Amino acid sequence: MREAMRPLLSVQTSPALGLDILAECRVSRARRCQLHLPHCPAGPVETPIFMPVGTQGAMKGITVAQLEALDCRILLGNTYHLGHRPGPDVMKMAGGLHKFMSWPRAILTDSGGFQMVSLSELSSVTEEGVHFTSPHNATEMLLTPEESVGHLQATLGADIVMQLDHVVHVLTEANSMHDAMHRSIRWLDRGIVAHESHRQKQNLFAITQGGLDPAWREQCINEMLKRKDKVAGFAIGGLSGGEAKSEFWRTVELSTSRLPRDRPRYLMGVGFPVDLVVCIALGCDMFDCVYPTRTGRFGHALVPWGQLNLRQARYKSDFRPIDTDCSCPCCTRPLSRAFIHASLSGRQVNASAVVSLHNLTYMLGLMRQIREAISVNRFPQFVREFFQRRCYLRKDDQARIEYEGFRPPSWAVDALAKVNIDISDIGLDTEEKFQSEDVEPKRVKSTDCTSF
Amino acid sequence: MREAMRPLLSVQTSPALGLDILAECRVSRARRCQLHLPHCPAGPVETPIFMPVGTQGAMKGITVAQLEALDCRILLGNTYHLGHRPGPDVMKMAGGLHKFMSWPRAILTDSGGFQMVSLSELSSVTEEGVHFTSPHNATEMLLTPEESVGHLQATLGADIVMQLDHVVHVLTEANSMHDAMHRSIRWLDRGIVAHESHRQKQNLFAITQGGLDPAWREQCINEMLKRKDKVAGFAIGGLSGGEAKSEFWRTVELSTSRLPRDRPRYLMGVGFPVDLVVCIALGCDMFDCVYPTRTGRFGHALVPWGQLNLRQARYKSDFRPIDTDCSCPCCTRPLSRAFIHASLSGRQVNASAVVSLHNLTYMLGLMRQIREAISVNRFPQFVREFFQRRCYLRKDDQARIEYEGFRPPSWAVDALAKVNIDISDIGLDTEEKFQSEDVEPKRVKSTDCTSF
Repeated sequence: MREAMRPLLSVQTSPALGLDILAECRVSRARRCQLHLPHCPAGPVETPIFMPVGTQGAMKGITVAQLEALDCRILLGNTYHLGHRPGPDVMKMAGGLHKFMSWPRAILTDSGGFQMVSLSELSSVTEEGVHFTSPHNATEMLLTPEESVGHLQATLGADIVMQLDHVVHVLTEANSMHDAMHRSIRWLDRGIVAHESHRQKQNLFAITQGGLDPAWREQCINEMLKRKDKVAGFAIGGLSGGEAKSEFWRTVELSTSRLPRDRPRYLMGVGFPVDLVVCIALGCDMFDCVYPTRTGRFGHALVPWGQLNLRQARYKSDFRPIDTDCSCPCCTRPLSRAFIHASLSGRQVNASAVVSLHNLTYMLGLMRQIREAISVNRFPQFVREFFQRRCYLRKDDQARIEYEGFRPPSWAVDALAKVNIDISDIGLDTEEKFQSEDVEPKRVKSTDCTSF
Repeated sequence: MREAMRPLLSVQTSPALGLDILAECRVSRARRCQLHLPHCPAGPVETPIFMPVGTQGAMKGITVAQLEALDCRILLGNTYHLGHRPGPDVMKMAGGLHKFMSWPRAILTDSGGFQMVSLSELSSVTEEGVHFTSPHNATEMLLTPEESVGHLQATLGADIVMQLDHVVHVLTEANSMHDAMHRSIRWLDRGIVAHESHRQKQNLFAITQGGLDPAWREQCINEMLKRKDKVAGFAIGGLSGGEAKSEFWRTVELSTSRLPRDRPRYLMGVGFPVDLVVCIALGCDMFDCVYPTRTGRFGHALVPWGQLNLRQARYKSDFRPIDTDCSCPCCTRPLSRAFIHASLSGRQVNASAVVSLHNLTYMLGLMRQIREAISVNRFPQFVREFFQRRCYLRKDDQARIEYEGFRPPSWAVDALAKVNIDISDIGLDTEEKFQSEDVEPKRVKSTDCTSF
């Protein structure tokens, strides 16, 4: 079917990025696109997409071969970490990050700017750039827009490079936020100049800032839109930092309403399955987060009906696989919840790794299902089914499965209503429903646990 | 070729173990056999064999799917650890260790006795059995021959179960050693009784003891040979505990000269590639050790010419794979030494895991090569080539590759001479040779490191 599909729009956003819009939801702002990037041996990057994060050129516990087997076509590398280890000299000798990590597919690198927040005690900002003290040794490092875009990220050779932006905590007081927003615009201009000689092979994305103030967000977006011809895509930055969910979604909604149709829209640092579904409805195309692998290392497995904390004692003699419908190596073998529980208790690193891999399989599978739903024009129904399947229970049932809440979160109900998807009735009949039924889907219950 | 081979000897050593001797070296005591065990869906276990160790039903960092892909057909599970976690109740509910860990192939379980040595502060021995204090909580546990063989190992359901023996440190003073040896014989008798009702599905191996004293070793073997009809195989126990290598090989040699041809011979807790090659020449069939996975976790990669400590700075910009001839996922992708070095420095668990998997691939491949060499009657040449390929260098060359020594270890030269394989000349010409040549094999040098 995909071959037969004629794009609604086909545009070369820069010499190294082709964007095809394959389908748009007729109800919400969800859309299905393809990104043609320099490293696409397995085909274009299909959006909506979740990008796994490889901090030092390697996913924690996951190999690039495993990612390839999941049909993952783009991942994220951290410039700041790679800049320290192995460092730009080794990276240059290796011939770039693709060759260094033996990953022939697309890569997006961040600017290194996020560590201004996450390592704030070790950094300070001037107009020139970000001054870091290395956490590994006492050396000083100055990260400028030119250094980030024109040197570090150019040496890494990623398909998509991010401008250096001035990231401040989302709840910072007004003046600082305003200054940082304007500095990010000035740094974008310096990044555009530094990027000029790399345009044939790499794509620069701008990062919109402005905190939670709608006027500033709009002002920043307007300014950056003036540079639209010089950037291949736009990111929504500065969110996912602890702000109220009601402000989070309103900022995303404002941004997607202003960002141009003919550029990819990347929501940085998000996140949870519910957040992704909502923000795709709001019009975002790309996402990244350490959540699926980090929570997997802690033994938390993502499932369509919520998540399982496999460290809990209730799984000690639960011989079912995590999810019989899952196609990951752990669920298809299948390894039981009891086996993973025992392995986690014994601090077996492969137990953490199999749950991380399961979680990435879940995230990439969720994106695949969403793309299909958009294509066949049933995305709104998909969203309703997604929320219906999650376990919203009465509190006294929580011993039987992990508890997510009585109803879908109100911020998600509000956000989806804004784009014409109504899930306000979901969970209202929960009380009666779960008096007669088990809380897990029937086919999970029916597994004969001792016969695998 | 294997199909056409008619066994030299075919014997049912017990209701659940068939032994075929396929070939015997005409020079040394090396032999190639097949073990037909209850769980052999991929074919019989071929010996000489190295058995990976799964402490809690899982190899550290390695999944059972990866082991299957290496054509591994038997692994070792630790009864003591499994007895504590998940414990016999969960194991019984799971339907045994095979189902619990989702491993349909053969398993050998130890008795739990080894922890008398490794956890000696937490245990004491009486005639009744071994009294342990749990390292996890303060509970007491009495491990008797009946409990180990008739209950714990029977519940685990391994293909091969080991008798409970009284393990003392190999350098213990004479009287204690003598007592422990006799106790091991009495415990074998109790184990045989406890095993009686499980004989159709499991195989009991006796463990010969007696420390380093030839007379006691012989006495123990003679006593245990009287029970030959009741046991499916014999193990050589109490070695690999820090004794001198000259005493180690003499004890192995004495044992294999007395153990019957028509039973498998299992040398416990060994070990290093050199030790395996020598002890196969001496007539041992089965081996187990945590060494390849443990040393892999530390970043040490086994290669035909020695081993590489990938944590060392010299690998920071070495873009060659560990070993271009290796078929493991890491070397075939290939991931460079520099990439693994950087990942190890970043404490990436998958870096440890890929080196562990590489090392297991090396060990199982070494065993495969040895079996082939025995079949085509060129095992002695294989042994010479094995030692020739290892790097024996002048000390001032050590910066270029890790240093193994000037010549093969004298204990290996002596042990192999005992079974008519002469390697005494290897390394004598090293000094001249390495003045004109690089120390690594040519084909490794020729890799174009920047083109993968």
